[in-house]
Amino acid sequence: MIRFADPAAFAEALASLLTANQAAIEAAAARQAQLTKPAGSLGRLEEIALFLAGWQGRERPRLEMVRAAVFAGNHGVAARGVSAFPADVTAQMVANFRAGGAAINALARAAGAELAVVPLDLDRPTGDIAVEPAMSEAECLAALNAGAAVVAPRTDLLFVGEMGIANTTPAAALCAQAFGGDAEAWVGTGTGIDQPGLARKMEAVALALALHGPFCTSPFETLRRLGGREIAAMAGAILAARLLRVPVLLDGYICCAAIAPLAAANPAFTQHCLAAHCSAEAAHDRLLGHVGLEPLLRLGMRLGEGTGAAVAVQLVRAALAAHDGMATFAEAAVAQAL
Amino acid sequence: MIRFADPAAFAEALASLLTANQAAIEAAAARQAQLTKPAGSLGRLEEIALFLAGWQGRERPRLEMVRAAVFAGNHGVAARGVSAFPADVTAQMVANFRAGGAAINALARAAGAELAVVPLDLDRPTGDIAVEPAMSEAECLAALNAGAAVVAPRTDLLFVGEMGIANTTPAAALCAQAFGGDAEAWVGTGTGIDQPGLARKMEAVALALALHGPFCTSPFETLRRLGGREIAAMAGAILAARLLRVPVLLDGYICCAAIAPLAAANPAFTQHCLAAHCSAEAAHDRLLGHVGLEPLLRLGMRLGEGTGAAVAVQLVRAALAAHDGMATFAEAAVAQAL
Repeated sequence: MIRFADPAAFAEALASLLTANQAAIEAAAARQAQLTKPAGSLGRLEEIALFLAGWQGRERPRLEMVRAAVFAGNHGVAARGVSAFPADVTAQMVANFRAGGAAINALARAAGAELAVVPLDLDRPTGDIAVEPAMSEAECLAALNAGAAVVAPRTDLLFVGEMGIANTTPAAALCAQAFGGDAEAWVGTGTGIDQPGLARKMEAVALALALHGPFCTSPFETLRRLGGREIAAMAGAILAARLLRVPVLLDGYICCAAIAPLAAANPAFTQHCLAAHCSAEAAHDRLLGHVGLEPLLRLGMRLGEGTGAAVAVQLVRAALAAHDGMATFAEAAVAQAL
Repeated sequence: MIRFADPAAFAEALASLLTANQAAIEAAAARQAQLTKPAGSLGRLEEIALFLAGWQGRERPRLEMVRAAVFAGNHGVAARGVSAFPADVTAQMVANFRAGGAAINALARAAGAELAVVPLDLDRPTGDIAVEPAMSEAECLAALNAGAAVVAPRTDLLFVGEMGIANTTPAAALCAQAFGGDAEAWVGTGTGIDQPGLARKMEAVALALALHGPFCTSPFETLRRLGGREIAAMAGAILAARLLRVPVLLDGYICCAAIAPLAAANPAFTQHCLAAHCSAEAAHDRLLGHVGLEPLLRLGMRLGEGTGAAVAVQLVRAALAAHDGMATFAEAAVAQAL
């Protein structure tokens, strides 16, 4: 299991990233070329099969062990009235996750994914990023490692999600810090905030950027100052996955914002990731452009929890069903193109 | 089982279409509003759940009986060199379907769909549409009824696909006849034809439109003159589904072209259909616009056989898993928006 001993270990992991297994990708591509269909006619399903082949190191990748985790955290900035929901909902939803009644439970079951529910110090909200860092160094490291702890070696596919009332506010701050642009460019309506709430949200992000910007000298510091526990946990899990060559399906805006500081520091970071979907939160599309990923789905979802990724697992299953289950031209005695 | 006795019966069926069950849609919408998520946050998954509710007439729709059929036909126009593959491939692929080795077999298995393989007089190609009608009245009626025959009452969801070397040529002709525009607007590279082949394809479509256009006075005549057996079979199946209130996932360009004459004659026709995907064939996007459907997936697929629809079945499963499996705010004791 991966554990980051200190911020330097986290930085070192990000600086020395493993790459995909090229021989497995080539073997998978050679197989695709022999399957009974016009070359390239399965479109992105072929791309998905090759992606999995490279990270699993198998010509015929599998999806037996699909792991998911939903991390929950509370945010000091919620007290500013930046969310449509009261902060108590974070803990209530954790109870709902544990009872199996949330969207992610239903969708993870449908996807054949094993779901871990990881609440992170819900009774201790992070600092209000508009006036102080979200976390201490120890708190941020603990959150990163809580994320890394959910990633087992030989996992076939991982996705992570989040629950944290107000967390589109730190997400917007992380994106602005990582890729530039002002608060307006990265703030949206989240779960459905009204106009005055939206103005408070933009103000909080602008204050946070002005206060912390000069000190965001590393991805760790950016996550610590502008992030949140569930956000750092997702970043830790996705980096740990890379260290174990576990492929990852990225969920929505918050999940992608969690890795924005990492991707800004090392653009190769997202190579082991597929973007499951583009959410209805307008800034998500822009963020995906910055990290160089084309989403698999555009269904107007904006729920978080890992729900978009859970839906996309089904596309990965379809891609592998075709890659693994189809006959070759020779096996089926079908003529190839003229 | 539905059977069209003659062309007049087909026309009558199209003129008197059943509508969705509004009470079931309202009950499903009321349920969605109580599930533990921000209102609307599952995006198109919510729309899918309501669509299924309306056509199945159930507040909580189900996907126990998912039926699929792949129809195969041969085309006289293939002799003009309008496809990248030899016409023999149609029969070879039917053997592949029966042996379970094609993409649609793998994807239908993954989707939990029961697949019927229906070859239609493969040893008797249709007439070359550039110089004669594709089918006689009896042949077209037989093809429509071969399609209708695959639709059982109480099917939870249906999709149909096709195999027929050269069939993007009649598909383009059908679209141009139904919605206007010249051959160039509707002809694409299909399975991968080269530039000279593309020119032959456009010429064939232009000749067919000039020859048959004045006589395409009904959807039946349009299908008979410009279509093909597998194309008419898909149209028959999708109309039969409407008569039985069976919801349909539309596949790619050929599948949608098959119903273009029906949708042009009666725009309400596509109400019982969801567009599974938009294919890489450029004209498909335009066609979906004409029939008023926004595709669920854009994966660059261009294989036909029903493969895009099979992949989209998984989205429908996800939509229903959330709709049926989630707890309500009251059940989970979660607070609603402020």
